[in-house]
Amino acid sequence: MSQTISEGDHVLLYLDRRRTYLVKVEKEKSFHTHKGFIQLEELIGKEYGTGITSSMDIEFVALEPTLRNYVFKMLRKTQITYPKDIALIIMFSGIGPGSRVVEAGTGTGALTTALAFYVRPEGCVYSYEIRQEFRETASKNLERANVSGNVKLKNKDVTEGIDEQDVDAVVLDLATPWLVVPHACSALKGSGTIVSFSPTIDQVMKTVEALRENAFVSIETVECLMRRMQVVKGRTRPETLMTGHSGYITFARKTLGKERSEDKHAGKR
Amino acid sequence: MSQTISEGDHVLLYLDRRRTYLVKVEKEKSFHTHKGFIQLEELIGKEYGTGITSSMDIEFVALEPTLRNYVFKMLRKTQITYPKDIALIIMFSGIGPGSRVVEAGTGTGALTTALAFYVRPEGCVYSYEIRQEFRETASKNLERANVSGNVKLKNKDVTEGIDEQDVDAVVLDLATPWLVVPHACSALKGSGTIVSFSPTIDQVMKTVEALRENAFVSIETVECLMRRMQVVKGRTRPETLMTGHSGYITFARKTLGKERSEDKHAGKR
Amino acid sequence: MSQTISEGDHVLLYLDRRRTYLVKVEKEKSFHTHKGFIQLEELIGKEYGTGITSSMDIEFVALEPTLRNYVFKMLRKTQITYPKDIALIIMFSGIGPGSRVVEAGTGTGALTTALAFYVRPEGCVYSYEIRQEFRETASKNLERANVSGNVKLKNKDVTEGIDEQDVDAVVLDLATPWLVVPHACSALKGSGTIVSFSPTIDQVMKTVEALRENAFVSIETVECLMRRMQVVKGRTRPETLMTGHSGYITFARKTLGKERSEDKHAGKR
Amino acid sequence: MSQTISEGDHVLLYLDRRRTYLVKVEKEKSFHTHKGFIQLEELIGKEYGTGITSSMDIEFVALEPTLRNYVFKMLRKTQITYPKDIALIIMFSGIGPGSRVVEAGTGTGALTTALAFYVRPEGCVYSYEIRQEFRETASKNLERANVSGNVKLKNKDVTEGIDEQDVDAVVLDLATPWLVVPHACSALKGSGTIVSFSPTIDQVMKTVEALRENAFVSIETVECLMRRMQVVKGRTRPETLMTGHSGYITFARKTLGKERSEDKHAGKR
Repeated sequence: MSQTISEGDHVLLYLDRRRTYLVKVEKEKSFHTHKGFIQLEELIGKEYGTGITSSMDIEFVALEPTLRNYVFKMLRKTQITYPKDIALIIMFSGIGPGSRVVEAGTGTGALTTALAFYVRPEGCVYSYEIRQEFRETASKNLERANVSGNVKLKNKDVTEGIDEQDVDAVVLDLATPWLVVPHACSALKGSGTIVSFSPTIDQVMKTVEALRENAFVSIETVECLMRRMQVVKGRTRPETLMTGHSGYITFARKTLGKERSEDKHAGKR
Repeated sequence: MSQTISEGDHVLLYLDRRRTYLVKVEKEKSFHTHKGFIQLEELIGKEYGTGITSSMDIEFVALEPTLRNYVFKMLRKTQITYPKDIALIIMFSGIGPGSRVVEAGTGTGALTTALAFYVRPEGCVYSYEIRQEFRETASKNLERANVSGNVKLKNKDVTEGIDEQDVDAVVLDLATPWLVVPHACSALKGSGTIVSFSPTIDQVMKTVEALRENAFVSIETVECLMRRMQVVKGRTRPETLMTGHSGYITFARKTLGKERSEDKHAGKR
Repeated sequence: MSQTISEGDHVLLYLDRRRTYLVKVEKEKSFHTHKGFIQLEELIGKEYGTGITSSMDIEFVALEPTLRNYVFKMLRKTQITYPKDIALIIMFSGIGPGSRVVEAGTGTGALTTALAFYVRPEGCVYSYEIRQEFRETASKNLERANVSGNVKLKNKDVTEGIDEQDVDAVVLDLATPWLVVPHACSALKGSGTIVSFSPTIDQVMKTVEALRENAFVSIETVECLMRRMQVVKGRTRPETLMTGHSGYITFARKTLGKERSEDKHAGKR
Repeated sequence: MSQTISEGDHVLLYLDRRRTYLVKVEKEKSFHTHKGFIQLEELIGKEYGTGITSSMDIEFVALEPTLRNYVFKMLRKTQITYPKDIALIIMFSGIGPGSRVVEAGTGTGALTTALAFYVRPEGCVYSYEIRQEFRETASKNLERANVSGNVKLKNKDVTEGIDEQDVDAVVLDLATPWLVVPHACSALKGSGTIVSFSPTIDQVMKTVEALRENAFVSIETVECLMRRMQVVKGRTRPETLMTGHSGYITFARKTLGKERSEDKHAGKR
């Protein structure tokens, strides 16, 4: 539906691909850039996609922020999970509208935001985080992206257990995922998905071992490289710099019957 | 919620990572593999994640199919879009629960299925396809994945125009996306996203040019390489074979005010 | 210098990129393909690059084999090292004309052939291999590529020691490179380079640890991905399939003074 | 052979992987770093690989510079070709000891240095460069790497023709390689190799077209991605940043008989 900008909305002011600003539209408030200032009030009642001119006569476009914009513009205290990885985590795990998902740890809430966005309107993300300052930052980030209604932030150490039962997915982005695998196994519904994101191969090795010991099947680990293209007539080429590594993503699915996969991998049957 | 398998449900019979079978559970029906046959009726009333033993005493696991399983097991008539690309297309475009999306062409419905899955429960995918046999195959694939209620399959040539107005996103996976760019511009709401998936760089060049001429901003093209890891104690390594290329994905966002970006790029102002 | 083909020479018969044949030019001998047979005798006295027509009137080109052609057309008993990896191994290690290099194991001689090619005319490759059938195959491959004069094939277990002293480089392509690191340290001249090629990350971890314990510095591990492009007007794109992984290459340089790097890495000084 | 450091030699002072310094050993000269200064004279008569302590009691190692060290430490006026690409250019083209190679343009001499290093002791690199300041810089870089005896720097525009005949390879690293293709065809011996390095896909398209029109066969274009690994116990992972693109490398081989490949590709026969 065509939408107009209201007071209190967030807009993404776009100058060019490298210069975008996520700002809240408030009356009597101006936004200052090195290209002059912008009277945000002027945007109220305008349609998203409208141009707005700064005091230095430079045109910006007022875009409606997408999920990805919110994720990139997070208030940060830690390294955020990359959108490319978030995309795979969600799509490959089967998480979608209505899913009940356990996440740990919350961190600044980048992945939490995306999970909450996709489980809407009925689903819920139970996000575990023991560090108070992170819960506070995450809370603000979730508010800003309008998805806090689908998240329960929990002040609890996930390595000591998961309260929820029969959840569709458990998503781990923490230093010692293997310690959470047995709890994830208990919390997941039969056939549910566990996902773990880890920067190092050592973490992956330990996690996969724990998954094998806990009757998970369909265990797979992937990494995703994304490269940007410069598309300009006569000068089309991949960009020079790219992120060479963010992390490995491991997926697995819970089976009922704990002994099974252990036996199988030990080759005893 | 913990779920039991009912007659008529689809289950993914899992033997190992390379051998999985998407089958419909029906009474008095058995499924034959080279590892013996399975009486599907036995699964009725069982929980997903349960093991089931074939006539040759080999154990399979009955997993609940995820979106990705449905996409991989599509009845095919063309090359399907890769799940890794589908994940980026959806996440980077801002498509989610409630979105109204135009897609062309439908093909066998792999991308359509994923779009429909994520716009649930209220959103809608308007999918254009002029080849009847593809519409028929897609229709079956959508039914099987339980998402046909969120899709309108349209027998119309998208290069001649788009009927819908103020849509959130237009997703193109066809041979000549640049011909659809002006129609997408009309159909999109201000600030809406266009996405185009193309295997060749020639298609990307033409599409990006058309986007620049049609007042789109935030134009970017990416490619995604996914590599699987073999994680086995003492033998951990990336897998030998990988898909080196599926296609480039181009994203852009609609601005209001058509002359703007043309002037800008022509450097005339 | 412009060269003509002589009896006994090898030529690479080129039909298209995927169909090339390395054959020896002999009198009264014909080469049979599914595109007809070729009288190799006709090539004698012709210049390399000449076309030759088969009995089915299909034209082949008689190319002079390059090092890379010899490496790809090896008589094989094991998986060969990829030319892309061989290129990095040689260039990054400083091996060149005149170098004295120890290599283990010989395998079928692919890497040996390349090393020998580049140390010509005065250098020497001392190649260790305990399996007789490999030494025999390698010997044939080296003869064919005309580089056997620069190689000494040694029937000795390199994990028990290296006979040579003050060598410029030690190149390892075997299952347990870490066992050879102390011997390499003894055999190398000060500042000489050790290179190890290993498919698994477990091997890399053990090797790097051994290097640190043996006073090596400038330790680095890389992997190389090579992707082919299809360059055809209107259809230019990367090729669909690529090799996702062959192996990791680790480089390091020998210092004099054994205690040094151990202390440094232990952070004791 | 074990070597000692003489006055006038270059050494690579190694502190850690990111901090290395290529310096000339001269009497009464000291080298200043942020870790104190080093009396270079002390190195004279020592073996390469020896440690040397700075005035701040920090130990450096005096390594013998390899080809790759020289290439990385080039005095630069332009972007240098990456060592990974240089490695493929040389290995895949068949260039080696004794080769006669035409190169254009010289630039700062990075690729020239590598070519000269590998054609030693008898081969020659004819390097074309019309910009005087580049010839001067390249000349210094070649001197420093001790390979100037195998290079003829030529002040001539290679797009107007190549003087040499029957060369083994022509290596192009310039903006308009397609203009040089016909000259390369004349200069190459039958079956000789042309190599072209270009950052953009537009350049590749034009070059490949020119190669097809000039009777070249075995035309292939590749790109090479190199990723570094951080190998540290418990924290092993690929490094975060990598070079996403340097350039595409196109290889082809000259046939005798100009009409042939044109006809073939036009599909007329």
